[in-house]
Amino acid sequence: MPAPTAEARIRVRYAETDQMGVVYHANYVVWFEVGRVELLRSIGLPYKQLEAEGILIAVAEVNARYKRPARYDDEIAVRTTVKQVRGSIIRIGYQVVRVGDEELLCEGETVHVVIDREFKRASLPEAYAARMAGE
Amino acid sequence: MPAPTAEARIRVRYAETDQMGVVYHANYVVWFEVGRVELLRSIGLPYKQLEAEGILIAVAEVNARYKRPARYDDEIAVRTTVKQVRGSIIRIGYQVVRVGDEELLCEGETVHVVIDREFKRASLPEAYAARMAGE
Amino acid sequence: MPAPTAEARIRVRYAETDQMGVVYHANYVVWFEVGRVELLRSIGLPYKQLEAEGILIAVAEVNARYKRPARYDDEIAVRTTVKQVRGSIIRIGYQVVRVGDEELLCEGETVHVVIDREFKRASLPEAYAARMAGE
Amino acid sequence: MPAPTAEARIRVRYAETDQMGVVYHANYVVWFEVGRVELLRSIGLPYKQLEAEGILIAVAEVNARYKRPARYDDEIAVRTTVKQVRGSIIRIGYQVVRVGDEELLCEGETVHVVIDREFKRASLPEAYAARMAGE
Repeated sequence: MPAPTAEARIRVRYAETDQMGVVYHANYVVWFEVGRVELLRSIGLPYKQLEAEGILIAVAEVNARYKRPARYDDEIAVRTTVKQVRGSIIRIGYQVVRVGDEELLCEGETVHVVIDREFKRASLPEAYAARMAGE
Repeated sequence: MPAPTAEARIRVRYAETDQMGVVYHANYVVWFEVGRVELLRSIGLPYKQLEAEGILIAVAEVNARYKRPARYDDEIAVRTTVKQVRGSIIRIGYQVVRVGDEELLCEGETVHVVIDREFKRASLPEAYAARMAGE
Repeated sequence: MPAPTAEARIRVRYAETDQMGVVYHANYVVWFEVGRVELLRSIGLPYKQLEAEGILIAVAEVNARYKRPARYDDEIAVRTTVKQVRGSIIRIGYQVVRVGDEELLCEGETVHVVIDREFKRASLPEAYAARMAGE
Repeated sequence: MPAPTAEARIRVRYAETDQMGVVYHANYVVWFEVGRVELLRSIGLPYKQLEAEGILIAVAEVNARYKRPARYDDEIAVRTTVKQVRGSIIRIGYQVVRVGDEELLCEGETVHVVIDREFKRASLPEAYAARMAGE
């Protein structure tokens, strides 16, 4: 099976703009999270449920490359793909595009470590890892 | 004793501006919290310690009146005063001014309810309530 | 005609929670703005277009009363109503409810002043004011 | 001359935490900006002045690696260094440490492009570039 992919839609909030007249760059990192959450939901592993089971997915690394500015009231699609699941490490990729003209605004990756409630490194249950890897 | 008062200093972040070229209004509500935290620290009741003791101070109401816009890189003073402490209810007042010209930018109040870890209404220990009321 | 009313839907982001395990209170003020923007769009006056025409709607006052906490991943409806349009002043009301159990989480009002690009007080064009007042 | 370096101090706000009980990861990207702004100020090029002169410094890339969680009310130091200035490209590095135990919490880099008010690629005036490069 191919790696899971999902799309989340976002309408740019006024709060997310800055005085340059475009979306402030740290907000794309929040949008990555919105994409990730929809990805997990789409494979039947809503993050809320994972947390309730004591499976936390901490962020170890964020990389973002900005191509074009998003603007107030733009409709945005965050396209999210699982890149790799190995042991307690998960890599996820993102493309942020403007709906309508399909302009690529930003792309990036995040690396995650699975931890337990005491913040100790843990492993995903095998069935979850398989689902996340698209197996 | 007079009601406790404290001043917190903030430098406006680029992230806090919006495309109108001024500080986005919801950020003043965050600044009120910065002021409140300094007020509690100044009377020897750091909020971190209160939380560790199971004393949570939830926000029940926020009122803010905007007078003049704050701008990027302005240095801001948040002046915070305890207005009332009665049972589980605490009222706090705020004045947000620009350092330098002393321009009043925003003023407001928050109302709080003391709760415990299960989010049940609780009372401040008497000694804490007295200190907060300036007695 | 009745006063214009609109509903916006929001999925609570992890970024919007705080260490109390609930949505941080200043985010409701951002959600009010999301509701306001949908209200304006629903009456054919998208705020983006107003700004392009040099009609800015500044926030003069915010009041919010918190009833129940919203939590991560909750689906939220922001129901927004025009309360009053008079001269350059606009009053808008909000109810924030959780979709599903219809629990009222927060209600509030904002007061706005219409200004021009130089931040001088201005009036809405009559046709716009009428539409906003539901006339 | 060595590359310019500066330190900014931040007190972690309650608003910056999430329900994992630690600072939400996107906030470090905001803190990088706080560090960058202090760095520019320290070399006599406050960003506010640059913007007024029509010299905008857009963010082209952000990389952050998270080591340890910051917590509410921690005092944080953001140590910022210019890594490279070449043509319209500026690279900046960051270390975020907790004051007191000097624990390294996060490190990262940003890449910037100098642009003008029309968002066209531009160059720093030579004197500014030299100052930024520590020459």
